[in-house]
Amino acid sequence: MHDGATLQMSPAITVAELSTRLGVPAPGNLADREIHGITSLELAGPHHAAYVTKEKYVERAEHSAAGIVLAPEGVTIGREGVLHVPDVMEAVLALLEHFHPDPPEQSFTHPSASVHPAAVLGENVYIGPNTVVAEGAQIGSGTRIEAFGYIGPQARIGDRCLFAPRVSVLERCEVGNRVRLHPGVVVGADGFRYEQVGGRLRRVPQVGTVVLEDDVEVGANSTIDRAALAETRVGARTKIDNMVHIAHNCLIGPDCIIVAQVGIAGSTTVGRGVVIAGQAGIGDNITIGDGAKVAGGSGVHENLPPGARVIGYPAIPAREFATFLLFYRNFGRYWKRIKKLSGDG
Amino acid sequence: MHDGATLQMSPAITVAELSTRLGVPAPGNLADREIHGITSLELAGPHHAAYVTKEKYVERAEHSAAGIVLAPEGVTIGREGVLHVPDVMEAVLALLEHFHPDPPEQSFTHPSASVHPAAVLGENVYIGPNTVVAEGAQIGSGTRIEAFGYIGPQARIGDRCLFAPRVSVLERCEVGNRVRLHPGVVVGADGFRYEQVGGRLRRVPQVGTVVLEDDVEVGANSTIDRAALAETRVGARTKIDNMVHIAHNCLIGPDCIIVAQVGIAGSTTVGRGVVIAGQAGIGDNITIGDGAKVAGGSGVHENLPPGARVIGYPAIPAREFATFLLFYRNFGRYWKRIKKLSGDG
Amino acid sequence: MHDGATLQMSPAITVAELSTRLGVPAPGNLADREIHGITSLELAGPHHAAYVTKEKYVERAEHSAAGIVLAPEGVTIGREGVLHVPDVMEAVLALLEHFHPDPPEQSFTHPSASVHPAAVLGENVYIGPNTVVAEGAQIGSGTRIEAFGYIGPQARIGDRCLFAPRVSVLERCEVGNRVRLHPGVVVGADGFRYEQVGGRLRRVPQVGTVVLEDDVEVGANSTIDRAALAETRVGARTKIDNMVHIAHNCLIGPDCIIVAQVGIAGSTTVGRGVVIAGQAGIGDNITIGDGAKVAGGSGVHENLPPGARVIGYPAIPAREFATFLLFYRNFGRYWKRIKKLSGDG
Repeated sequence: MHDGATLQMSPAITVAELSTRLGVPAPGNLADREIHGITSLELAGPHHAAYVTKEKYVERAEHSAAGIVLAPEGVTIGREGVLHVPDVMEAVLALLEHFHPDPPEQSFTHPSASVHPAAVLGENVYIGPNTVVAEGAQIGSGTRIEAFGYIGPQARIGDRCLFAPRVSVLERCEVGNRVRLHPGVVVGADGFRYEQVGGRLRRVPQVGTVVLEDDVEVGANSTIDRAALAETRVGARTKIDNMVHIAHNCLIGPDCIIVAQVGIAGSTTVGRGVVIAGQAGIGDNITIGDGAKVAGGSGVHENLPPGARVIGYPAIPAREFATFLLFYRNFGRYWKRIKKLSGDG
Repeated sequence: MHDGATLQMSPAITVAELSTRLGVPAPGNLADREIHGITSLELAGPHHAAYVTKEKYVERAEHSAAGIVLAPEGVTIGREGVLHVPDVMEAVLALLEHFHPDPPEQSFTHPSASVHPAAVLGENVYIGPNTVVAEGAQIGSGTRIEAFGYIGPQARIGDRCLFAPRVSVLERCEVGNRVRLHPGVVVGADGFRYEQVGGRLRRVPQVGTVVLEDDVEVGANSTIDRAALAETRVGARTKIDNMVHIAHNCLIGPDCIIVAQVGIAGSTTVGRGVVIAGQAGIGDNITIGDGAKVAGGSGVHENLPPGARVIGYPAIPAREFATFLLFYRNFGRYWKRIKKLSGDG
Repeated sequence: MHDGATLQMSPAITVAELSTRLGVPAPGNLADREIHGITSLELAGPHHAAYVTKEKYVERAEHSAAGIVLAPEGVTIGREGVLHVPDVMEAVLALLEHFHPDPPEQSFTHPSASVHPAAVLGENVYIGPNTVVAEGAQIGSGTRIEAFGYIGPQARIGDRCLFAPRVSVLERCEVGNRVRLHPGVVVGADGFRYEQVGGRLRRVPQVGTVVLEDDVEVGANSTIDRAALAETRVGARTKIDNMVHIAHNCLIGPDCIIVAQVGIAGSTTVGRGVVIAGQAGIGDNITIGDGAKVAGGSGVHENLPPGARVIGYPAIPAREFATFLLFYRNFGRYWKRIKKLSGDG
């Protein structure tokens, strides 16, 4: 996401400073060493931090050239430069935020951008090269729109959003605060609806909008269609991966995880905290209860109760699928008998 | 689609005028009320129209604040402001066209656009911000190409087309009249073909074209690849949803419906009036007969006769799949017996 | 791919010259005829070449108006203008390269492009309309970046690459030599990772890179995510079709073929020479052995040994799936008996 026209340098930090920041004692002999970044055990050199979360990575850590290795308390690693921390992921996130901060807020409009005079920009808005902001669009303070952004007429974007290059938010759609959209995302393309009227197939104009609530994230080349009349909505903090299709009039709850290449057909309602794994398909006009989990590649064609766990094509409860799998995976064992009993063998 | 740099206001209309337009009597007490738009029963206020198509929505209509509710003749709704019409969808389409007309034709080229001097533009062509029209391209009268359009060398675009922002029609491809392309559509990317020649895998240059016939519509981020030598063709009035992949040399007939995330592999022929539901995959070099229907998520790997109804992975006739489904969905009931008969239990 | 702002004309060639080029005798009566291109048997006219690879196309060749038909030695076609060649595809490739050469290398930057003064361009680099090259980016000699390209800060692009319109290579990613990227490709969008830290779901910043090795090709609208910390890598000569999703930290080997709409989840390793057919899904953190083949639409959720052939959801060995298919495809024959034996019938 940090693809601004301006390059940011990651600030170096000594091991002593790093230890202070994480609230743990510094290894004395390394206190003055500078650390320039955090990377994997394999790519790390003496001026990098790296980390292990589990016992099973200890050997890799022992062979790593990393200057510092973060490790959970109780995991012993036979090398110098190990920092034991109470929560490794929390420490990793702290270092990532130090070395790779979000770009600083700035008020900037690239000379190649086309911002309509009747658009309204908040404070410290960054508008990248070639970005187009149409008539009546509003963009909140601290928001950053990289190259080739398209903000359509009367679209409203909240505060402190980060839009990667090539994001489209079409006419009248609304985006909350701190929303992250990745390259190629299309918010508010027309939905897909045709009706037989007077004996011929007619296109139904799609005049509703899309609302993305606060803290939503949408991955590269995903598309979220505008509603026919009302609104397609994605709830707060819901995370959507790459190439996901969300059709018109869907209402997606908050705190959901929707993995890559999932498709959700029109007018479907997805509850709170639902997880839909990659390439699953959800039919139209159905309801997925809160906290349901849909396995990757599944096809869901009927309502799911809260907390459901489903898998398969079509999707059935995970426990039942597990039984079917014993049959399917060991089919050779049953096949001869089935054939014989059926008078076939 | 109405994402021009210029904002259009929807013209208000009185209930009396609206009734006249629909050919039904106006409710006397509301005749002078202004209606500003049409939306869902839930979002509608006293200056909106809304509609019901079925008895089951009557209660929602009775609780709606909509100024006007369109309803089928014979469906009684206990509230004022109900307009009974002979065909609700026809009335809805009439109001949608009134409140959300396609943008008016205009001759305009945004100063940021790059139009090659040897491109040929018809009358009343709109070229949006940053759009690129290459050498030898032709664009028909009344066509509108929004921001970031790319029309490649010698591409030919028909009359009264509407291209949303960020549409690509590459070199030499042809698009008919009244074609609608949504954001991120790519027409004429190279097909995918490699051949073992002289002992190594070599890329086969893709030098054919794509032809989209009149009144085709293609959804956001879909890709239609150019033929190897000849043409990939999509027939008149065929509607393609988001993120659909149509490979090189496919010949798609007229009046088809191809739903989101479908993939059709190379050199496959799809007949007239075929419906392919979401996420289905169609193999290469096969023929799908006229009027066939392929269920969502299915995998079709062999020719289908006209009128076929198939579902499943691999796709089998829908009637046979329904029987298999009884087994799959109730597998627990059969499992113990199968195990026992097979000497397993 | 040849979508430059400048149009190229295909140079005509006489039949005599064409025969010399292919190393076969020219048909005397046609030696002076000019050939302007190569196309399909059906579209070809008297100044086109066309070809057949097999006996079964002979009748089509006899009805074709093509001036020249290339055919394998030993395949007799009853018409004039047949050139028998030892390897038809090799001859076809030679003619395609003659009539449709890659665009010539040229040093050109379109006036609408935004190239940062601290970017470094090699010799004969073509930068198309509206293309953005950010600070610290490097672009190798002979590379061509068409309209709307986005090359992020510190990204490095090799020599003689061809990027179609609308390609994105984000911050710090690396692309080798002779890489072809098609419209809408996104290299280096953020991966998708969230962790429960301190009782709430937190986004893990994605700060690694993507490396595409030499001679990789990536189809329209595909996305290859940057690694969390280290690198996502695609090996030399691997070919990726349209709308493929490759998640963060994947390591894809050389010489693979990955067909349209495939999804590969995070941290998965794919060996050398693997073929993954269209719409297949590969789970996260697994290993696919060298030379494995995954059938279209399959779901792979466990490691595959080298040379494996799998199909199905979930994917099982192709031989086992073939047996299951006998049951599934002929289910009606077994169903009554299964019901009866289970006390159901």
